[in-house]
Amino acid sequence: MTRKILYSMPGQAALSESLLSLTDWQAGDMILRQFPDGESYLRVLDDVQGRDVAILCQLHQPDSRVLPLLLLADTLRDLGAQRVGLVAPYLAYMRQDKRFNQGEGISSHYFARLISQHMDWLLTVDPHLHRIHQLDEVYSIPARSLTAVQPIADWIRQHVPKPLVIGPDSESEQWAARVADAAACPWEVLQKQRFGDRDVDVSLPHVENYLDRTPILVDDIISTGKTMIQAARHLINAGMTNPVCIAVHGIFAQGALADMQNNGLRVVTSNSIADDSNQIDLAPLLSDALMLFPD
Amino acid sequence: MTRKILYSMPGQAALSESLLSLTDWQAGDMILRQFPDGESYLRVLDDVQGRDVAILCQLHQPDSRVLPLLLLADTLRDLGAQRVGLVAPYLAYMRQDKRFNQGEGISSHYFARLISQHMDWLLTVDPHLHRIHQLDEVYSIPARSLTAVQPIADWIRQHVPKPLVIGPDSESEQWAARVADAAACPWEVLQKQRFGDRDVDVSLPHVENYLDRTPILVDDIISTGKTMIQAARHLINAGMTNPVCIAVHGIFAQGALADMQNNGLRVVTSNSIADDSNQIDLAPLLSDALMLFPD
Repeated sequence: MTRKILYSMPGQAALSESLLSLTDWQAGDMILRQFPDGESYLRVLDDVQGRDVAILCQLHQPDSRVLPLLLLADTLRDLGAQRVGLVAPYLAYMRQDKRFNQGEGISSHYFARLISQHMDWLLTVDPHLHRIHQLDEVYSIPARSLTAVQPIADWIRQHVPKPLVIGPDSESEQWAARVADAAACPWEVLQKQRFGDRDVDVSLPHVENYLDRTPILVDDIISTGKTMIQAARHLINAGMTNPVCIAVHGIFAQGALADMQNNGLRVVTSNSIADDSNQIDLAPLLSDALMLFPD
Repeated sequence: MTRKILYSMPGQAALSESLLSLTDWQAGDMILRQFPDGESYLRVLDDVQGRDVAILCQLHQPDSRVLPLLLLADTLRDLGAQRVGLVAPYLAYMRQDKRFNQGEGISSHYFARLISQHMDWLLTVDPHLHRIHQLDEVYSIPARSLTAVQPIADWIRQHVPKPLVIGPDSESEQWAARVADAAACPWEVLQKQRFGDRDVDVSLPHVENYLDRTPILVDDIISTGKTMIQAARHLINAGMTNPVCIAVHGIFAQGALADMQNNGLRVVTSNSIADDSNQIDLAPLLSDALMLFPD
Protein backbone atom coordinates (compact mmCIF):
# COMPACT_ATOMS: atom_id res chain seq x y z
CA MET A 1 0.00 0.00 0.00
CA THR A 2 1.26 3.45 -0.88
CA ARG A 3 1.89 5.54 2.17
CA LYS A 4 -0.19 8.69 2.27
CA ILE A 5 1.40 11.90 3.52
CA LEU A 6 -0.26 14.86 5.24
CA TYR A 7 1.44 18.28 5.17
CA SER A 8 0.29 20.78 7.78
CA MET A 9 0.47 24.49 7.10
CA PRO A 10 1.53 26.53 10.14
CA GLY A 11 -0.79 27.16 13.07
CA GLN A 12 -2.73 23.90 13.29
CA ALA A 13 -0.37 21.72 15.30
CA ALA A 14 -3.01 20.36 17.69
CA LEU A 15 -5.49 19.31 15.00
CA SER A 16 -2.68 17.94 12.86
CA GLU A 17 -1.29 15.75 15.64
CA SER A 18 -4.70 14.53 16.63
CA LEU A 19 -5.52 13.69 13.02
CA LEU A 20 -2.26 11.84 12.37
CA SER A 21 -2.74 9.76 15.51
CA LEU A 22 -6.13 8.54 14.26
CA THR A 23 -5.29 7.76 10.62
CA ASP A 24 -2.82 5.82 8.51
CA TRP A 25 -1.55 9.09 7.05
CA GLN A 26 2.03 9.95 7.86
CA ALA A 27 3.29 13.40 8.84
CA GLY A 28 4.86 15.27 5.95
CA ASP A 29 8.15 17.02 6.56
CA MET A 30 8.74 20.35 4.89
CA ILE A 31 10.32 23.75 5.30
CA LEU A 32 8.11 26.76 4.72
CA ARG A 33 9.60 30.14 5.47
CA GLN A 34 9.52 33.71 4.23
CA PHE A 35 12.42 35.39 2.50
CA PRO A 36 13.18 38.89 3.84
CA ASP A 37 11.19 40.29 0.91
CA GLY A 38 8.10 38.35 1.99
CA GLU A 39 8.17 35.69 -0.70
CA SER A 40 7.57 32.13 0.47
CA TYR A 41 10.29 29.49 0.29
CA LEU A 42 9.18 25.86 0.19
CA ARG A 43 11.09 22.63 0.43
CA VAL A 44 9.49 19.20 0.74
CA LEU A 45 11.72 16.75 2.60
CA ASP A 46 9.88 13.52 1.75
CA ASP A 47 9.95 11.45 -1.40
CA VAL A 48 6.43 12.05 -2.71
CA GLN A 49 6.87 10.39 -6.11
CA GLY A 50 3.65 8.51 -6.92
CA ARG A 51 2.19 9.23 -3.48
CA ASP A 52 -1.19 10.44 -2.34
CA VAL A 53 -0.59 13.64 -0.39
CA ALA A 54 -2.83 16.15 1.34
CA ILE A 55 -2.38 19.61 2.82
CA LEU A 56 -4.09 20.63 6.06
CA CYS A 57 -4.66 24.37 5.94
CA GLN A 58 -6.54 26.96 7.96
CA LEU A 59 -8.28 29.40 5.65
CA HIS A 60 -9.56 32.18 7.89
CA GLN A 61 -7.94 35.54 7.07
CA PRO A 62 -7.27 33.81 3.77
CA ASP A 63 -5.59 36.38 1.55
CA SER A 64 -2.07 35.83 2.87
CA ARG A 65 -2.49 32.05 3.26
CA VAL A 66 -3.62 31.10 -0.21
CA LEU A 67 -0.51 31.78 -2.29
CA PRO A 68 1.79 29.65 -0.09
CA LEU A 69 -0.87 26.91 -0.19
CA LEU A 70 -1.00 26.97 -3.99
CA LEU A 71 2.80 27.01 -4.22
CA LEU A 72 3.00 23.98 -1.91
CA ALA A 73 0.44 22.10 -4.02
CA ASP A 74 2.40 22.94 -7.17
CA THR A 75 5.66 21.86 -5.54
CA LEU A 76 4.21 18.50 -4.46
CA ARG A 77 2.81 17.86 -7.91
CA ASP A 78 6.10 18.93 -9.52
CA LEU A 79 7.90 16.43 -7.27
CA GLY A 80 5.71 13.64 -8.59
CA ALA A 81 2.86 13.35 -6.09
CA GLN A 82 0.03 11.38 -7.63
CA ARG A 83 -2.80 13.35 -6.08
CA VAL A 84 -2.76 16.49 -3.94
CA GLY A 85 -5.76 16.97 -1.67
CA LEU A 86 -6.79 19.89 0.51
CA VAL A 87 -8.10 19.41 4.04
CA ALA A 88 -9.54 22.81 4.91
CA PRO A 89 -11.69 22.41 8.04
CA TYR A 90 -12.82 26.00 7.49
CA LEU A 91 -13.44 26.85 3.85
CA ALA A 92 -13.06 30.52 2.98
CA TYR A 93 -14.85 32.65 0.40
CA MET A 94 -18.22 30.94 0.65
CA ARG A 95 -20.26 34.05 1.42
CA GLN A 96 -20.07 36.21 -1.68
CA ASP A 97 -21.95 33.61 -3.72
CA LYS A 98 -24.02 36.00 -5.82
CA ARG A 99 -23.76 39.40 -7.52
CA PHE A 100 -25.82 41.35 -5.01
CA ASN A 101 -24.94 44.66 -6.68
CA GLN A 102 -23.89 45.37 -10.24
CA GLY A 103 -20.15 45.00 -10.76
CA GLU A 104 -19.46 42.81 -7.75
CA GLY A 105 -17.12 39.88 -8.04
CA ILE A 106 -18.64 36.49 -7.20
CA SER A 107 -15.63 35.46 -5.19
CA SER A 108 -17.11 32.08 -4.13
CA HIS A 109 -16.98 30.98 -7.74
CA TYR A 110 -13.52 32.38 -8.52
CA PHE A 111 -12.02 30.97 -5.33
CA ALA A 112 -13.53 27.54 -6.01
CA ARG A 113 -12.11 27.55 -9.51
CA LEU A 114 -8.67 28.54 -8.23
CA ILE A 115 -8.63 25.76 -5.64
CA SER A 116 -9.98 23.28 -8.20
CA GLN A 117 -7.12 24.17 -10.57
CA HIS A 118 -4.48 23.35 -7.96
CA MET A 119 -5.95 20.50 -5.91
CA ASP A 120 -7.30 17.06 -6.75
CA TRP A 121 -9.86 16.90 -3.98
CA LEU A 122 -11.22 18.91 -1.07
CA LEU A 123 -12.41 17.90 2.37
CA THR A 124 -14.06 20.49 4.62
CA VAL A 125 -16.43 20.87 7.56
CA ASP A 126 -19.70 22.81 7.51
CA PRO A 127 -18.97 25.22 4.67
CA HIS A 128 -21.26 28.25 4.71
CA LEU A 129 -23.70 27.00 2.06
CA HIS A 130 -26.47 29.41 1.25
CA ARG A 131 -27.30 30.04 -2.39
CA ILE A 132 -24.72 27.38 -3.25
CA HIS A 133 -26.39 24.18 -2.04
CA GLN A 134 -23.62 21.70 -2.78
CA LEU A 135 -19.90 22.29 -3.11
CA ASP A 136 -19.86 20.54 -6.48
CA GLU A 137 -21.90 23.39 -7.94
CA VAL A 138 -18.71 25.48 -7.80
CA TYR A 139 -15.85 23.03 -7.15
CA SER A 140 -14.96 20.91 -10.16
CA ILE A 141 -12.94 18.44 -8.05
CA PRO A 142 -14.34 15.81 -5.67
CA ALA A 143 -15.36 17.96 -2.69
CA ARG A 144 -16.81 16.50 0.46
CA SER A 145 -18.27 18.46 3.34
CA LEU A 146 -18.65 16.92 6.77
CA THR A 147 -20.75 18.32 9.55
CA ALA A 148 -19.80 19.01 13.16
CA VAL A 149 -23.42 18.66 14.34
CA GLN A 150 -22.71 15.42 16.20
CA PRO A 151 -19.44 16.54 17.88
CA ILE A 152 -21.20 19.73 19.01
CA ALA A 153 -24.17 17.75 20.33
CA ASP A 154 -21.77 15.41 22.14
CA TRP A 155 -20.02 18.37 23.75
CA ILE A 156 -23.37 19.78 24.93
CA ARG A 157 -24.48 16.46 26.42
CA GLN A 158 -21.18 16.08 28.23
CA HIS A 159 -20.91 19.62 29.57
CA VAL A 160 -24.35 21.21 30.00
CA PRO A 161 -27.20 19.85 32.12
CA LYS A 162 -30.67 20.89 30.95
CA PRO A 163 -29.58 22.68 27.76
CA LEU A 164 -31.78 24.75 25.48
CA VAL A 165 -30.32 25.15 22.00
CA ILE A 166 -31.02 28.58 20.50
CA GLY A 167 -30.44 29.81 16.99
CA PRO A 168 -29.49 33.49 17.22
CA ASP A 169 -31.30 34.40 13.97
CA SER A 170 -33.60 32.87 11.37
CA GLU A 171 -30.67 31.80 9.16
CA SER A 172 -29.49 29.49 11.93
CA GLU A 173 -32.85 27.70 12.32
CA GLN A 174 -31.90 24.49 10.46
CA TRP A 175 -28.62 24.44 12.28
CA ALA A 176 -30.14 24.81 15.74
CA ALA A 177 -32.74 22.14 14.97
CA ARG A 178 -30.13 19.58 13.91
CA VAL A 179 -27.86 20.20 16.91
CA ALA A 180 -30.80 19.99 19.33
CA ASP A 181 -32.04 16.84 17.68
CA ALA A 182 -28.63 15.20 18.05
CA ALA A 183 -28.33 16.41 21.65
CA ALA A 184 -31.92 15.32 22.43
CA CYS A 185 -32.88 18.68 23.89
CA PRO A 186 -35.38 21.43 23.02
CA TRP A 187 -34.55 24.31 20.71
CA GLU A 188 -35.83 27.74 19.72
CA VAL A 189 -34.85 30.50 17.33
CA LEU A 190 -34.69 34.13 18.38
CA GLN A 191 -37.31 36.26 16.64
CA LYS A 192 -36.55 39.74 15.40
CA GLN A 193 -38.86 42.40 16.76
CA ARG A 194 -39.05 45.76 15.05
CA PHE A 195 -39.92 48.95 16.92
CA GLY A 196 -40.18 51.65 14.28
CA ASP A 197 -37.72 52.01 11.43
CA ARG A 198 -34.39 51.50 13.15
CA ASP A 199 -34.96 49.86 16.47
CA VAL A 200 -34.64 46.11 16.20
CA ASP A 201 -34.55 43.77 19.16
CA VAL A 202 -34.71 40.01 19.46
CA SER A 203 -36.87 37.89 21.68
CA LEU A 204 -37.09 34.26 22.72
CA PRO A 205 -40.49 32.67 22.17
CA HIS A 206 -41.87 30.78 25.17
CA VAL A 207 -39.07 32.12 27.38
CA GLU A 208 -41.17 31.40 30.48
CA ASN A 209 -40.85 27.64 29.82
CA TYR A 210 -37.05 27.71 29.76
CA LEU A 211 -35.93 29.69 32.79
CA ASP A 212 -34.44 26.58 34.41
CA ARG A 213 -32.38 25.71 31.32
CA THR A 214 -28.92 26.77 30.21
CA PRO A 215 -29.17 28.61 26.90
CA ILE A 216 -26.74 27.42 24.19
CA LEU A 217 -26.48 29.80 21.26
CA VAL A 218 -25.26 27.86 18.21
CA ASP A 219 -24.18 29.03 14.78
CA ASP A 220 -21.85 27.83 12.07
CA ILE A 221 -19.54 30.87 12.18
CA ILE A 222 -18.73 33.57 14.71
CA SER A 223 -17.15 36.52 12.96
CA THR A 224 -17.63 39.88 14.68
CA GLY A 225 -19.57 38.21 17.54
CA LYS A 226 -22.18 40.99 17.48
CA THR A 227 -25.14 38.71 16.73
CA MET A 228 -24.15 36.47 19.63
CA ILE A 229 -23.60 39.38 22.03
CA GLN A 230 -26.98 40.93 21.20
CA ALA A 231 -28.73 37.58 21.56
CA ALA A 232 -27.01 36.88 24.87
CA ARG A 233 -27.96 40.29 26.23
CA HIS A 234 -31.61 39.61 25.50
CA LEU A 235 -31.53 36.18 27.16
CA ILE A 236 -29.89 37.57 30.29
CA ASN A 237 -32.40 40.47 30.43
CA ALA A 238 -35.18 37.89 30.14
CA GLY A 239 -33.92 36.18 33.30
CA MET A 240 -31.87 33.31 31.86
CA THR A 241 -28.37 32.36 32.98
CA ASN A 242 -25.33 33.42 30.95
CA PRO A 243 -25.44 31.51 27.69
CA VAL A 244 -22.78 29.30 26.16
CA CYS A 245 -21.95 30.35 22.58
CA ILE A 246 -20.94 27.51 20.27
CA ALA A 247 -19.78 27.75 16.69
CA VAL A 248 -18.01 25.36 14.38
CA HIS A 249 -15.78 28.11 13.04
CA GLY A 250 -14.49 30.82 15.35
CA ILE A 251 -13.18 33.31 12.81
CA PHE A 252 -13.21 36.10 15.37
CA ALA A 253 -12.62 39.33 13.51
CA GLN A 254 -10.16 41.44 15.46
CA GLY A 255 -10.95 41.43 19.17
CA ALA A 256 -14.24 39.56 18.79
CA LEU A 257 -13.38 36.68 21.13
CA ALA A 258 -12.27 39.08 23.88
CA ASP A 259 -15.43 41.20 23.32
CA MET A 260 -17.59 38.16 23.82
CA GLN A 261 -15.72 37.00 26.90
CA ASN A 262 -15.83 40.53 28.35
CA ASN A 263 -19.62 40.33 27.94
CA GLY A 264 -19.60 37.31 30.23
CA LEU A 265 -20.10 34.75 27.48
CA ARG A 266 -18.58 31.29 27.50
CA VAL A 267 -17.36 30.67 23.94
CA VAL A 268 -16.79 27.18 22.57
CA THR A 269 -15.57 26.36 19.05
CA SER A 270 -14.17 23.46 17.11
CA ASN A 271 -10.48 23.39 16.22
CA SER A 272 -11.18 24.19 12.55
CA ILE A 273 -9.39 27.45 13.43
CA ALA A 274 -6.90 27.12 16.25
CA ASP A 275 -7.41 29.35 19.29
CA ASP A 276 -8.18 29.33 23.01
CA SER A 277 -11.90 28.71 22.51
CA ASN A 278 -11.34 25.29 20.86
CA GLN A 279 -13.05 22.55 22.84
CA ILE A 280 -14.46 20.38 20.08
CA ASP A 281 -11.90 18.24 18.28
CA LEU A 282 -12.72 17.65 14.62
CA ALA A 283 -9.99 15.03 14.24
CA PRO A 284 -12.27 11.98 14.71
CA LEU A 285 -14.69 13.31 12.09
CA LEU A 286 -11.93 14.20 9.61
CA SER A 287 -9.96 11.03 10.19
CA ASP A 288 -12.96 8.81 9.41
CA ALA A 289 -13.37 10.64 6.12
CA LEU A 290 -9.63 10.60 5.37
CA MET A 291 -9.56 6.80 5.66
CA LEU A 292 -11.93 6.50 2.69
CA PHE A 293 -12.01 9.77 0.78
CA PRO A 294 -11.41 10.50 -2.09
CA ASP A 295 -11.34 6.82 -3.13
CA MET B 1 -11.99 53.50 -30.41
CA THR B 2 -12.68 51.38 -27.36
CA ARG B 3 -11.71 53.15 -24.18
CA LYS B 4 -9.10 51.32 -22.18
CA ILE B 5 -9.40 51.25 -18.40
CA LEU B 6 -6.62 51.01 -15.81
CA TYR B 7 -7.45 49.75 -12.31
CA SER B 8 -4.93 50.58 -9.60
CA MET B 9 -4.53 48.34 -6.60
CA PRO B 10 -3.98 50.22 -3.32
CA GLY B 11 -0.69 51.95 -2.53
CA GLN B 12 0.43 53.21 -5.92
CA ALA B 13 -1.50 56.46 -6.23
CA ALA B 14 1.46 58.55 -7.44
CA LEU B 15 2.54 56.18 -10.21
CA SER B 16 -1.08 55.59 -11.19
CA GLU B 17 -1.85 59.29 -11.56
CA SER B 18 1.36 59.95 -13.44
CA LEU B 19 0.64 57.05 -15.79
CA LEU B 20 -2.96 58.07 -16.47
CA SER B 21 -1.89 61.62 -17.27
CA LEU B 22 0.50 60.34 -19.96
CA THR B 23 -1.72 57.75 -21.69
CA ASP B 24 -5.12 57.40 -23.28
CA TRP B 25 -6.11 54.93 -20.57
CA GLN B 26 -8.87 56.04 -18.26
CA ALA B 27 -8.91 55.56 -14.48
CA GLY B 28 -10.93 52.55 -13.40
CA ASP B 29 -13.33 53.01 -10.52
CA MET B 30 -13.73 50.17 -8.07
CA ILE B 31 -14.29 49.31 -4.43
CA LEU B 32 -11.81 46.94 -2.82
CA ARG B 33 -12.15 46.34 0.89
CA GLN B 34 -11.74 43.63 3.46
CA PHE B 35 -14.62 41.99 5.29
CA PRO B 36 -14.09 41.70 9.06
CA ASP B 37 -12.99 38.09 8.47
CA GLY B 38 -10.21 39.23 6.13
CA GLU B 39 -11.81 38.18 2.87
CA SER B 40 -11.63 40.69 0.03
CA TYR B 41 -14.74 42.36 -1.35
CA LEU B 42 -14.57 43.69 -4.91
CA ARG B 43 -16.94 45.81 -6.91
CA VAL B 44 -16.13 47.29 -10.31
CA LEU B 45 -18.03 50.52 -10.97
CA ASP B 46 -17.36 50.88 -14.71
CA ASP B 47 -19.00 49.12 -17.62
CA VAL B 48 -16.13 46.95 -18.83
CA GLN B 49 -18.10 44.88 -21.35
CA GLY B 50 -15.86 44.33 -24.39
CA ARG B 51 -13.16 46.64 -23.01
CA ASP B 52 -9.43 46.31 -22.74
CA VAL B 53 -8.58 46.65 -19.07
CA ALA B 54 -5.38 46.48 -17.04
CA ILE B 55 -4.51 46.26 -13.38
CA LEU B 56 -1.60 48.20 -11.88
CA CYS B 57 -0.29 46.24 -8.92
CA GLN B 58 2.70 46.38 -6.60
CA LEU B 59 4.01 42.87 -5.97
CA HIS B 60 6.57 43.25 -3.19
CA GLN B 61 5.54 41.35 -0.04
CA PRO B 62 3.41 39.47 -2.53
CA ASP B 63 1.66 36.74 -0.55
CA SER B 64 -1.20 38.91 0.71
CA ARG B 65 -1.51 40.89 -2.54
CA VAL B 66 -1.91 38.10 -5.05
CA LEU B 67 -5.33 36.68 -4.14
CA PRO B 68 -7.12 40.07 -4.35
CA LEU B 69 -5.33 40.65 -7.67
CA LEU B 70 -6.53 37.33 -9.07
CA LEU B 71 -10.07 37.96 -7.79
CA LEU B 72 -10.11 41.37 -9.47
CA ALA B 73 -8.93 39.87 -12.76
CA ASP B 74 -11.63 37.20 -12.53
CA THR B 75 -14.27 39.82 -11.70
CA LEU B 76 -13.31 41.97 -14.70
CA ARG B 77 -13.40 38.99 -17.03
CA ASP B 78 -16.70 37.84 -15.54
CA LEU B 79 -18.12 41.32 -16.22
CA GLY B 80 -17.20 40.98 -19.88
CA ALA B 81 -13.78 42.64 -20.20
CA GLN B 82 -12.18 41.62 -23.47
CA ARG B 83 -8.63 41.41 -22.19
CA VAL B 84 -7.23 41.81 -18.68
CA GLY B 85 -3.59 42.87 -18.48
CA LEU B 86 -1.26 43.18 -15.53
CA VAL B 87 1.08 46.14 -15.10
CA ALA B 88 3.45 45.01 -12.36
CA PRO B 89 6.41 47.40 -12.29
CA TYR B 90 8.05 45.02 -9.80
CA LEU B 91 7.52 41.36 -10.64
CA ALA B 92 7.66 39.01 -7.66
CA TYR B 93 8.84 35.41 -7.41
CA MET B 94 11.64 35.68 -9.99
CA ARG B 95 14.46 34.48 -7.74
CA GLN B 96 13.66 30.85 -6.97
CA ASP B 97 14.10 29.88 -10.62
CA LYS B 98 15.77 26.51 -10.07
CA ARG B 99 15.69 23.57 -7.69
CA PHE B 100 18.89 24.36 -5.79
CA ASN B 101 18.21 21.60 -3.26
CA GLN B 102 16.16 18.46 -3.63
CA GLY B 103 12.51 18.99 -2.79
CA GLU B 104 12.44 22.74 -3.34
CA GLY B 105 9.58 24.35 -5.14
CA ILE B 106 10.50 26.30 -8.27
CA SER B 107 8.24 29.16 -7.34
CA SER B 108 9.20 31.30 -10.37
CA HIS B 109 7.58 28.73 -12.62
CA TYR B 110 4.49 28.18 -10.49
CA PHE B 111 3.92 31.89 -10.00
CA ALA B 112 4.29 32.56 -13.73
CA ARG B 113 1.76 29.86 -14.52
CA LEU B 114 -0.70 31.26 -11.97
CA ILE B 115 -0.44 34.78 -13.40
CA SER B 116 -0.65 33.43 -16.96
CA GLN B 117 -3.90 31.61 -16.07
CA HIS B 118 -5.56 34.81 -14.88
CA MET B 119 -4.14 37.56 -17.08
CA ASP B 120 -3.97 38.12 -20.83
CA TRP B 121 -0.69 40.02 -20.84
CA LEU B 122 2.01 41.29 -18.52
CA LEU B 123 4.09 44.46 -18.53
CA THR B 124 6.93 44.83 -16.04
CA VAL B 125 10.21 46.65 -15.44
CA ASP B 126 13.59 44.99 -14.94
CA PRO B 127 12.47 41.61 -13.67
CA HIS B 128 15.24 39.75 -11.87
CA LEU B 129 16.26 37.51 -14.77
CA HIS B 130 19.02 35.08 -13.97
CA ARG B 131 18.62 31.49 -15.09
CA ILE B 132 15.39 32.53 -16.77
CA HIS B 133 16.62 34.70 -19.65
CA GLN B 134 13.31 35.80 -21.09
CA LEU B 135 9.92 36.07 -19.40
CA ASP B 136 8.33 33.98 -22.13
CA GLU B 137 10.30 30.97 -20.94
CA VAL B 138 7.90 30.84 -17.99
CA TYR B 139 5.01 33.15 -18.85
CA SER B 140 2.65 31.73 -21.46
CA ILE B 141 1.01 35.12 -22.10
CA PRO B 142 2.56 38.07 -23.98
CA ALA B 143 5.00 39.42 -21.39
CA ARG B 144 7.10 42.49 -21.97
CA SER B 145 9.86 43.72 -19.73
CA LEU B 146 11.08 47.30 -19.91
CA THR B 147 14.29 48.59 -18.40
CA ALA B 148 14.85 51.58 -16.16
CA VAL B 149 18.47 51.95 -17.28
CA GLN B 150 17.78 55.21 -19.13
CA PRO B 151 15.63 56.86 -16.41
CA ILE B 152 18.33 55.95 -13.85
CA ALA B 153 21.08 57.35 -16.10
CA ASP B 154 19.04 60.52 -16.61
CA TRP B 155 18.66 60.93 -12.85
CA ILE B 156 22.41 60.54 -12.37
CA ARG B 157 23.22 63.10 -15.07
CA GLN B 158 20.78 65.57 -13.56
CA HIS B 159 21.77 65.15 -9.91
CA VAL B 160 25.40 64.02 -9.61
CA PRO B 161 28.44 65.84 -10.96
CA LYS B 162 31.42 63.58 -11.73
CA PRO B 163 29.69 60.26 -11.00
CA LEU B 164 31.33 56.85 -10.84
CA VAL B 165 28.87 54.00 -11.27
CA ILE B 166 29.74 50.99 -9.12
CA GLY B 167 28.24 47.51 -9.17
CA PRO B 168 28.26 46.23 -5.58
CA ASP B 169 28.95 42.62 -6.62
CA SER B 170 29.79 40.58 -9.70
CA GLU B 171 26.11 39.83 -10.41
CA SER B 172 25.51 43.53 -10.96
CA GLU B 173 28.31 43.95 -13.54
CA GLN B 174 26.08 44.03 -16.64
CA TRP B 175 23.74 46.33 -14.85
CA ALA B 176 26.43 48.83 -13.81
CA ALA B 177 27.93 48.81 -17.30
CA ARG B 178 24.63 49.66 -18.97
CA VAL B 179 23.76 52.45 -16.55
CA ALA B 180 27.24 53.98 -16.86
CA ASP B 181 27.10 53.73 -20.62
CA ALA B 182 23.76 55.55 -20.70
CA ALA B 183 25.05 58.16 -18.22
CA ALA B 184 28.34 58.53 -20.11
CA CYS B 185 30.45 58.04 -17.01
CA PRO B 186 33.03 55.48 -15.85
CA TRP B 187 32.08 52.33 -13.94
CA GLU B 188 33.64 49.62 -11.81
CA VAL B 189 32.51 46.51 -9.98
CA LEU B 190 33.53 45.78 -6.41
CA GLN B 191 35.76 42.72 -6.13
CA LYS B 192 35.39 40.20 -3.34
CA GLN B 193 38.55 39.65 -1.33
CA ARG B 194 38.85 36.59 0.84
CA PHE B 195 41.00 36.52 3.99
CA GLY B 196 40.88 32.95 5.23
CA ASP B 197 37.69 30.90 5.33
CA ARG B 198 35.18 33.36 6.69
CA ASP B 199 36.49 36.83 6.33
CA VAL B 200 35.32 38.40 3.11
CA ASP B 201 35.75 42.03 2.23
CA VAL B 202 35.18 43.99 -0.95
CA SER B 203 37.48 46.39 -2.70
CA LEU B 204 37.26 48.91 -5.51
CA PRO B 205 39.80 48.39 -8.27
CA HIS B 206 41.72 51.55 -9.25
CA VAL B 207 40.23 53.45 -6.30
CA GLU B 208 43.07 55.97 -6.50
CA ASN B 209 41.74 57.22 -9.86
CA TYR B 210 38.29 57.96 -8.51
CA LEU B 211 38.75 59.91 -5.29
CA ASP B 212 37.30 63.07 -6.84
CA ARG B 213 34.15 61.31 -8.03
CA THR B 214 30.83 60.63 -6.33
CA PRO B 215 30.28 56.89 -6.07
CA ILE B 216 26.88 55.65 -7.25
CA LEU B 217 26.12 52.09 -6.21
CA VAL B 218 23.53 50.64 -8.58
CA ASP B 219 21.58 47.39 -8.48
CA ASP B 220 18.24 46.13 -9.69
CA ILE B 221 16.84 45.33 -6.23
CA ILE B 222 17.58 46.45 -2.69
CA SER B 223 16.18 43.93 -0.23
CA THR B 224 17.97 43.78 3.13
CA GLY B 225 20.36 46.56 2.07
CA LYS B 226 23.33 44.64 3.54
CA THR B 227 25.26 44.40 0.26
CA MET B 228 24.88 48.14 -0.26
CA ILE B 229 25.86 48.98 3.34
CA GLN B 230 28.98 46.80 3.18
CA ALA B 231 29.97 48.27 -0.18
CA ALA B 232 29.43 51.82 1.04
CA ARG B 233 31.51 51.20 4.15
CA HIS B 234 34.40 50.06 2.02
CA LEU B 235 34.17 53.09 -0.26
CA ILE B 236 34.09 55.49 2.67
CA ASN B 237 37.05 53.73 4.31
CA ALA B 238 38.92 54.05 1.02
CA GLY B 239 38.53 57.83 1.16
CA MET B 240 35.52 58.36 -1.11
CA THR B 241 32.53 60.54 -0.29
CA ASN B 242 29.27 58.99 0.92
CA PRO B 243 27.80 57.04 -1.97
CA VAL B 244 24.38 57.35 -3.52
CA CYS B 245 22.60 53.97 -3.66
CA ILE B 246 20.25 53.52 -6.60
CA ALA B 247 17.98 50.60 -7.32
CA VAL B 248 15.03 50.10 -9.61
CA HIS B 249 13.12 48.17 -6.97
CA GLY B 250 13.35 49.20 -3.33
CA ILE B 251 11.83 46.16 -1.67
CA PHE B 252 13.37 47.09 1.68
CA ALA B 253 12.88 44.13 3.97
CA GLN B 254 11.80 45.36 7.38
CA GLY B 255 13.80 48.40 8.48
CA ALA B 256 16.27 48.21 5.57
CA LEU B 257 15.67 51.73 4.27
CA ALA B 258 16.15 53.21 7.74
CA ASP B 259 19.26 51.06 8.24
CA MET B 260 20.76 52.42 5.06
CA GLN B 261 19.87 56.00 5.86
CA ASN B 262 21.27 55.61 9.38
CA ASN B 263 24.51 54.51 7.73
CA GLY B 264 24.66 57.87 5.98
CA LEU B 265 23.57 56.57 2.60
CA ARG B 266 21.46 58.52 0.16
CA VAL B 267 18.95 56.02 -1.26
CA VAL B 268 17.20 56.57 -4.57
CA THR B 269 14.67 54.20 -6.16
CA SER B 270 12.08 54.18 -8.88
CA ASN B 271 8.39 54.27 -8.00
CA SER B 272 7.92 50.59 -8.91
CA ILE B 273 7.33 50.24 -5.16
CA ALA B 274 5.96 53.36 -3.52
CA ASP B 275 8.00 54.81 -0.65
CA ASP B 276 9.99 57.87 0.45
CA SER B 277 13.06 56.92 -1.58
CA ASN B 278 11.22 57.20 -4.94
CA GLN B 279 12.90 59.77 -7.16
CA ILE B 280 12.72 58.08 -10.54
CA ASP B 281 9.29 58.09 -12.15
CA LEU B 282 8.62 55.03 -14.31
CA ALA B 283 5.43 56.51 -15.75
CA PRO B 284 7.01 57.81 -19.00
CA LEU B 285 8.57 54.42 -19.67
CA LEU B 286 5.40 52.48 -18.86
CA SER B 287 3.10 54.87 -20.68
CA ASP B 288 5.07 54.55 -23.92
CA ALA B 289 4.69 50.79 -23.70
CA LEU B 290 1.02 50.99 -22.71
CA MET B 291 0.21 53.01 -25.84
CA LEU B 292 1.27 50.07 -28.02
CA PHE B 293 1.36 46.91 -25.93
CA PRO B 294 -0.03 44.26 -26.20
CA ASP B 295 -1.31 45.09 -29.71
